[in-house]
Amino acid sequence: MEQTDVLRRVVIEGVAPEVDGGRFAVKRTIGESVQVQADIFSDGHDAISCALLHRHAKDTRWTETPMAALGNDRWQAAFRVTALGRYLYTIQGWIDPFKTWQRDLSKKMEAGQSVDVDVMTGLDLIEKARSRAVKEDEALIAGWMRRIESAPLLEERALILQDPELEDLIARCPDKTTATVYDRTLAVQVDRARARFGAWYELFPRSCSREQGKHGTFRECEALLPYVAEMGFDVLYLPPIHPIGVTHRKGKNNTPTAGPEDPGSPWAIGAAEGGHKAIHPELGTLGDFRRLLEKAGEHGLEIALDLAFQCTPDHPYVKANPQWFRHRPDGTIQYAENPPKRYQDIYPLHFESEDWKSLYEELKGVVDFWIAQGVRIFRVDNPHTKPFPFWEWLIEGVKRTHPEVIFLSEAFTRPKVQYRLAKVGFSQSYTYFAWRNTAWEIREYFTELSRTPVREFFRPNLWPNTPDILTEYLQMGGRPAFMVRLVLAATLGASYGIYGPAFELCENRPKETGSEEYLDSEKYEIRHWEIDAPLSLKDFISRVNRIRSENPALQSDRHLRFHETDNDQVLCYSKHTEDLSNIVLVVANLDPHHTHACWLRLPINDFGLHERQPYQVHDLLSGARYLWHGGRNYVALDPQVAPAHILRIRRRIRTEHDFDYFL
Amino acid sequence: MEQTDVLRRVVIEGVAPEVDGGRFAVKRTIGESVQVQADIFSDGHDAISCALLHRHAKDTRWTETPMAALGNDRWQAAFRVTALGRYLYTIQGWIDPFKTWQRDLSKKMEAGQSVDVDVMTGLDLIEKARSRAVKEDEALIAGWMRRIESAPLLEERALILQDPELEDLIARCPDKTTATVYDRTLAVQVDRARARFGAWYELFPRSCSREQGKHGTFRECEALLPYVAEMGFDVLYLPPIHPIGVTHRKGKNNTPTAGPEDPGSPWAIGAAEGGHKAIHPELGTLGDFRRLLEKAGEHGLEIALDLAFQCTPDHPYVKANPQWFRHRPDGTIQYAENPPKRYQDIYPLHFESEDWKSLYEELKGVVDFWIAQGVRIFRVDNPHTKPFPFWEWLIEGVKRTHPEVIFLSEAFTRPKVQYRLAKVGFSQSYTYFAWRNTAWEIREYFTELSRTPVREFFRPNLWPNTPDILTEYLQMGGRPAFMVRLVLAATLGASYGIYGPAFELCENRPKETGSEEYLDSEKYEIRHWEIDAPLSLKDFISRVNRIRSENPALQSDRHLRFHETDNDQVLCYSKHTEDLSNIVLVVANLDPHHTHACWLRLPINDFGLHERQPYQVHDLLSGARYLWHGGRNYVALDPQVAPAHILRIRRRIRTEHDFDYFL
Repeated sequence: MEQTDVLRRVVIEGVAPEVDGGRFAVKRTIGESVQVQADIFSDGHDAISCALLHRHAKDTRWTETPMAALGNDRWQAAFRVTALGRYLYTIQGWIDPFKTWQRDLSKKMEAGQSVDVDVMTGLDLIEKARSRAVKEDEALIAGWMRRIESAPLLEERALILQDPELEDLIARCPDKTTATVYDRTLAVQVDRARARFGAWYELFPRSCSREQGKHGTFRECEALLPYVAEMGFDVLYLPPIHPIGVTHRKGKNNTPTAGPEDPGSPWAIGAAEGGHKAIHPELGTLGDFRRLLEKAGEHGLEIALDLAFQCTPDHPYVKANPQWFRHRPDGTIQYAENPPKRYQDIYPLHFESEDWKSLYEELKGVVDFWIAQGVRIFRVDNPHTKPFPFWEWLIEGVKRTHPEVIFLSEAFTRPKVQYRLAKVGFSQSYTYFAWRNTAWEIREYFTELSRTPVREFFRPNLWPNTPDILTEYLQMGGRPAFMVRLVLAATLGASYGIYGPAFELCENRPKETGSEEYLDSEKYEIRHWEIDAPLSLKDFISRVNRIRSENPALQSDRHLRFHETDNDQVLCYSKHTEDLSNIVLVVANLDPHHTHACWLRLPINDFGLHERQPYQVHDLLSGARYLWHGGRNYVALDPQVAPAHILRIRRRIRTEHDFDYFL
Repeated sequence: MEQTDVLRRVVIEGVAPEVDGGRFAVKRTIGESVQVQADIFSDGHDAISCALLHRHAKDTRWTETPMAALGNDRWQAAFRVTALGRYLYTIQGWIDPFKTWQRDLSKKMEAGQSVDVDVMTGLDLIEKARSRAVKEDEALIAGWMRRIESAPLLEERALILQDPELEDLIARCPDKTTATVYDRTLAVQVDRARARFGAWYELFPRSCSREQGKHGTFRECEALLPYVAEMGFDVLYLPPIHPIGVTHRKGKNNTPTAGPEDPGSPWAIGAAEGGHKAIHPELGTLGDFRRLLEKAGEHGLEIALDLAFQCTPDHPYVKANPQWFRHRPDGTIQYAENPPKRYQDIYPLHFESEDWKSLYEELKGVVDFWIAQGVRIFRVDNPHTKPFPFWEWLIEGVKRTHPEVIFLSEAFTRPKVQYRLAKVGFSQSYTYFAWRNTAWEIREYFTELSRTPVREFFRPNLWPNTPDILTEYLQMGGRPAFMVRLVLAATLGASYGIYGPAFELCENRPKETGSEEYLDSEKYEIRHWEIDAPLSLKDFISRVNRIRSENPALQSDRHLRFHETDNDQVLCYSKHTEDLSNIVLVVANLDPHHTHACWLRLPINDFGLHERQPYQVHDLLSGARYLWHGGRNYVALDPQVAPAHILRIRRRIRTEHDFDYFL
C-alpha cells in the first residue's frame, strides 16, 4: 500500500451511463446532452467536491464541469455533444478542506463558539490555495488575504472568510493531489440526428415500372421520388441492387425452381455480371444509381442500401476466393441451412477462414465502394449470422473516416444478441415491435427500450411490416389495423419505417393461413402497385409524418412514458421535449374492430400544468380541439373513423388584455 | 485484430454474482453454495457449451462444472464452498461443433433428408475429439469409431452417432482453443457459519456486580454466563474493556464534568494504566479476561470485543506518538467534533498522517493482540470515520492468518457508506432495523437487503436496541413492543442482537422527551439490573432463540420473502431452506396497543403444497397447531397475549395405514 492509497479517500462508484463496465460506448446524436450520475462519497464528515471531465477523442484537453449533489451521495453533471465521432468522459472527486472548514465555521459561529483557532486554519487554507492558483486568481486571493488581515476584529475576519465570492475563488484552485479519478474512461458515440430520428420507406426498384410485368429501372424509380417525399419520408431504403444468381434461383412464392421469367430474390447476390459492387443490369448503370441518389437528395430523401453479406453459387467470389467459403467433406461448398431447411441458392461467407483478413478487407471495401458513390446509410441484413468482432471492426473502421455513416441492424433474433449488435456499433436496430400488439406487450417492451440502461446503446427503428413480415394483426384487422400500427410506429419510435406500397395499400393477403409471408411476395416477383388507389393511406401517412416533423417531442425516445387507462384495449402514452415546450399525447384503440372508450389518468403536474388550470388538447390528426382539466379525462375511439388521437397539449396563456390563447 | 479475436465468437456478459465489476468479493459461509449465472451466446446458429470454473485461492487447479441453459441465453451452474478463505471463479464458453452437428443431424433425419456427407463430417469431428482426449477417453472413442465404421448401413451409423453416451464422451474433450474466458476472475470470501447466523447479547461487565453501586469485575461477569447462555445467545459482546481517560471525562447522563465517583464512558479509551491493549484495572487482569473467555466457551458463548480506534487525551499514544494526531494551528491536538458538538475527551487518530504506516501497523497489532488472547469476533465502533483503504488492508491482513475472525461494522451512517464498508471486508453490519417500524418500511428495507445484489456482500445484524438507541417505538409501546421487535429481529435476521439486561427488562425511559438516549445510561454510570424481575422477557427470548436454533430456515437470510396481508398493521413473511424441508412463517402485529386481525395470502405452491392439500401450521411460540388449506387464511393477534406467531409449516404425510401425521 502506498501513501496515495491512504490519502485517496473519495469513492466513485455506480456511474451511469456506463455500458458493460465501459467496454462499449453510449450513443448520442449531435446536440444531445449526456447526463452523468455517480455515487461519490468519503469516510468521515469531510465535505467533498467532484467534477465531470469530458473531451472529444480528438482533443487533448478535458473540460471540467462541477457536479451537483442530488442527495443520498448521488452526484450529477451533464455535457452537450456538438461534434460527430467519439467523446470521452470520466469523473474526479476529492476531499475539499476549505468547503469543510467553511461549513464548520458557520455552525460554530451560529452556536456562539470561539473561532480564533479556526480563523487561523482558514487563513492557512487560503494561503495554500493561493500557491496552487493561476496568476489571475493568485492576485485575487492575495487581495482577499490583505482584506482579512487588515480587519481588526476576529468576527469581521470570520465573516469575510465566509463570503461566497471567496468560496467560488478557492473552489477554482482545488488541491487534487489526492483526488480519486474514476478508474474507467467512458465513451460516447456521437452520430448525426438521422440516427435518432427519421421515417423510412422500403421500396423494390424493380417494381417501379409504369408497365405491368416489366422490370423497373432506377430511371423509373426517379418518377416515384415525389410520391415518397410527399408522404414525408426521410430515408428511401432499397433492397439489394446487385446481380441476382441463377443457380437454384427461387421461383414465385419461394418455389424451389424458377421459371425463365422469374427474377429471383434480390438477396441472392452475385452472378456472371458481378457481385456486391455491381449493379443489376436490368436496374441500370452505376451512373443511373448515382443520378437516383442525386435526385432523391433534391426531394429531401436519403437512399439507404442493403448490406447482405452472402453469395449465390454464381458470385465471382466463389471462383476467385473459394477459401472464403466452408467446404464439406465431399468437396462441395457448404450452402446455407437451418435444418431441416436448406438454402441451396446461398453460400454463407466463412468468417473463421484462415484467410479471414482478406475477407474482412474485401467486405469493408464493399462498404467503402458505396460510400464513394454517395451512400451514407446501410441496412444490414441478418448481422447476427456474422461474428460480433467483425461488425465492431467494420463499423469502427468506417466511422473513423466517415462518422456520419448510419448502420441499421436487421437482427430478428434473441434480445441479448440484438443488444450485443447495438453495443458493438450498430446505430439503429429493428425491434420486436411488429409482434407487440396488446397494451401490456407494448408497455412492457417500450418501457424496457426507453427507460432502462438499454436506451444508452440501442436505438429502435419500428417497422409494422417488412417484405418478410405481414403480421396476423395486419392480416385480420383491415384498414384500421394499418392505421393504428402506423400511428404506433411513428409515435412510439422516433425512427420508424414501412415497406411500401404494400403498406399504404393495406396489402394483407398471406401466402397461406398461419404464414407471415406475403402472398405473391415481391421478394420473388415483380409487382405492380396501384399507388393512386382511393383507399390508400398515403394522405394519412403524410399527415402523421408532418406531425412528426412539426413536433420535436416525437423526434426522440428519451421521454416516452405510458399512462393509465381503465380499458385494456386503449393504450395511452406521451412524449415531450426536455423543456416541456412540446408535449404530445397519443391515445390509440388497439382493437381494429370495435369502438372503445375509457378514462385516462395523466400526470399533469409533470407536464407543468396545475390541477385547476384548463388546458387544450389539439388532435393533430383530425384538427379537433378539446378543453380538458385535471388528470382524469374521457376518450372514445371508433376505429372506422380514427383509431387514434395524436394530441398536442397546449397550455393556456392569459394576456394582459385578459384574452386567453393556447400555446 | 488477431485471428484469436476472430475465432473467439462466444460472448459472456451479465455475470452474477459480481460486486462492482469484480472489484470486491461476494460473501458466503462454509457449506453454502455459489449459484452463478451469465448471459452466454454467440452469433449464428451454432450450439455452444460453457463451464463454471472455481478453485480455492490456495489451490492451483480449477474445478470445472458444466453450465445449464435457463432459456433466453442465460446459463447457470453452482459450486459449494467448503473451506475458509477465498475462492475464485470464472466462466468459459465455446462453440461446440459436435453438439451443433448432432442437433442438425437429428433434424435432417426426422425430415428424411440424406445425411451421407453429414456422417462424414461427424466422423471427422469424432476423430478430432479423439486427438484431444485423455488416454482413457481416447480408447473409448476409438472403440466407438470402430463400431461406427463396422456398421454396414448409413442409417445405422447415423443412429450410433446420436447415442447420448457418445455425446457425453465427446463433451469431455472439447476444443477450447477458441474458448472465451470471462475477462474477470471473481472472488468469494468464505467465513465460518457464525458470520451468517448468531444471536448476540451486549453486556457492560462493570454492571455485573451483585452489590449495587460497586464496579463489576470479569469474575462477577462469569456468574452471569449461565443467564446469557440459557437465553440461547451465541455471542457475548462487551463494550471496550480498556482503561478509561480522566481528562474531560463525562459525568452521569453525559454531563460535561464528571464527579469523582463517575466511571466515565468505556469508549473513552486510554489512561495512565494503558491503552487499547490494556485492561481496565477495576475489571480485573488479562488473566481474568482469558479465564472469562474460557468459561464463556464452556457455556457455548463466544466473546466479542469492541474495536474503538480513538484515544482520550490521557492515552499513552498521545505522548509517545503525537504524530498520529492532527494538530491545530495553536499547537493543541484536534479533539473530535461534529460542529457545533465538541468531544474534548476524544482525540481521533489521524489516518492521513505522514507516519500512517506505523499507525496502521500499531492498530493491526491491537487486533493481533486480542486474537492472541483468544478473541475471534470484533464489533468495530464507527468504522465510517476511518478510511476505507485502512479497513480493507486491516481485515485482509488479519484474515490471511486468521480467516475465522469476524468483524461487525457499527456504521449508523448513509447507506452507500455502510455498503462500502461491507464491500471492503466487514463480515456483518448493523442496519437501520431499529428505525424501520411500519410494515411498508420493513418490507422495502428487507427486500433490498435480501433480494437485490446487496445480499452478496452485506450481512445484516439486527439490533432492536443498543446503549445508544432506545427508539420511540420501544419507549411508547410497552412490553408488547419489546416482544414484537425481538421476534422481528430474530426472524428477519439470521444474525441479531440485544443490549441487555435493559432489553429483557423492558427499560424504556429516555433521557428526555424526543431523545433516543437511555435515562441514566450505562455508558456513563454503573447500573444494577434486577434480572429476575417477574416481567422479564428472558423466557420469551429463550423460546425465540430455541426456535432459531431448531429451524434452519431462520439461519439464513437468502430466502426471506414477504406475503400480502389485508391489514397494514400485520406483517407476514416466510423463510425456508433450499430444499423446503423447513419452512417458517412469521405473522406479527406491529401495533403494540390493539388487537389486529387479517387475511393472509400465501404462495403455497412455492412451499411445495397443493391448493387442496391441508397443512398444519404449528405456532412454535405458543405450541398451538392449526389446520389450514389454500393460500388464504385468517389470523388475529392480541399484543397483550402474543404479538406474533412463528409458525412452522408442516406437510401432511399419509401412511400406508391411512394414518395422517404432519412432518
